[in-house]
Amino acid sequence: MAALKLAIGNKNYSSWSMRPWLALRANDIPFVETLIPLYTDNPADKEQILSFSRAGKVPVLVDGDITVWDSLSIIEYIAERYPEKKLWPDDVAARAYARSVCAEMHSGFMALRNECGMNLHRPVRPVTLSADAKANIARVQEIWRECRTRYGAKGPFLFGRFGAADAMYAPVVHRFRTYAIEVTSETNAYIDTMLALPAFQEWTRDGLAETLRIEKFEDA
Amino acid sequence: MAALKLAIGNKNYSSWSMRPWLALRANDIPFVETLIPLYTDNPADKEQILSFSRAGKVPVLVDGDITVWDSLSIIEYIAERYPEKKLWPDDVAARAYARSVCAEMHSGFMALRNECGMNLHRPVRPVTLSADAKANIARVQEIWRECRTRYGAKGPFLFGRFGAADAMYAPVVHRFRTYAIEVTSETNAYIDTMLALPAFQEWTRDGLAETLRIEKFEDA
Repeated sequence: MAALKLAIGNKNYSSWSMRPWLALRANDIPFVETLIPLYTDNPADKEQILSFSRAGKVPVLVDGDITVWDSLSIIEYIAERYPEKKLWPDDVAARAYARSVCAEMHSGFMALRNECGMNLHRPVRPVTLSADAKANIARVQEIWRECRTRYGAKGPFLFGRFGAADAMYAPVVHRFRTYAIEVTSETNAYIDTMLALPAFQEWTRDGLAETLRIEKFEDA
Repeated sequence: MAALKLAIGNKNYSSWSMRPWLALRANDIPFVETLIPLYTDNPADKEQILSFSRAGKVPVLVDGDITVWDSLSIIEYIAERYPEKKLWPDDVAARAYARSVCAEMHSGFMALRNECGMNLHRPVRPVTLSADAKANIARVQEIWRECRTRYGAKGPFLFGRFGAADAMYAPVVHRFRTYAIEVTSETNAYIDTMLALPAFQEWTRDGLAETLRIEKFEDA
């Protein structure tokens, strides 16, 4: 059986790429990574992305003849292909909750995403945030607390063991860190859980080692 | 067994609500609908939304003790609860493709969504579109063509029979119509398929009967 292939963007910036990468790596699912630098002026980079998927975006997962794109769709695919990894909780209510918080992240939190873009090498310092971004930050903390209180009895992650929801919210951990967001002690406990995850550490180390800067993602 | 409950917004405007509503109705799954007017100045409306879901947004599905929110998560829930409706294709490759195009709609097409908001009662007329919106329109047509060419052998919908992908792209059918978007004959054939779907007609009729106008969604 040929190995899975995952096309991703720069680890320093590409929050969408981080999600399925983490879902694979944290579950010890082997895959071959292809990193395509984003927003370069090199047409070959755009062509390479299009050669993976006509959607023209990373991440893209290739499994033999099957191509899957978009972070959430890739995570659903991995969950189906490797059911023993339990990316979604077994319990129906917990699974519905997990899918809802993942979809909420996937389509929302625009203010937080725009004002606090993931940028691992950014020097830690606060920024002035809009009311919408502050509301996003409060909502993320509410989600994390609700998940761990209701469904996290069997472990320190959002639904106990590491799963799809942790992967989907992982970039927020970096955002809270680099933008020096003030958070509750409960939030900090979950952040510490993620920071201790070897796959999270590996992505972070790789991203910090990258030298390519994208000026439009760097604040003054 | 208590009936499902679905909270939705104004049928004239709420494209996110239309998606799971259509997935239920077109499959003859019984549910009780609660319509909560969006963007009113009435705090009771916002409170009612929050009483359904702390995410503060419609659509929300309630199934006994289980609450599911966000269009895509609700569709996944319905697909699991009513497997005989086959909201996702049986074939692994087709299902991966369907999930990918649904996720692409769920997180993308911002220009099209912003410049051509769903507004059923809008008089048909063209608008000047940005390059991004034009690229979105081309991409939607490419997706529809690809789905129907590859996987639509058994029927006129995107994957043959009506499914999740048709529900997710349904509001675009109205956008193409009211903004007088020029489309290919293949696209028009699919639009005709959707316009002939009784559930699509029912939503449209209900939306056109609404009298509440939201000024910020009305163009000059």
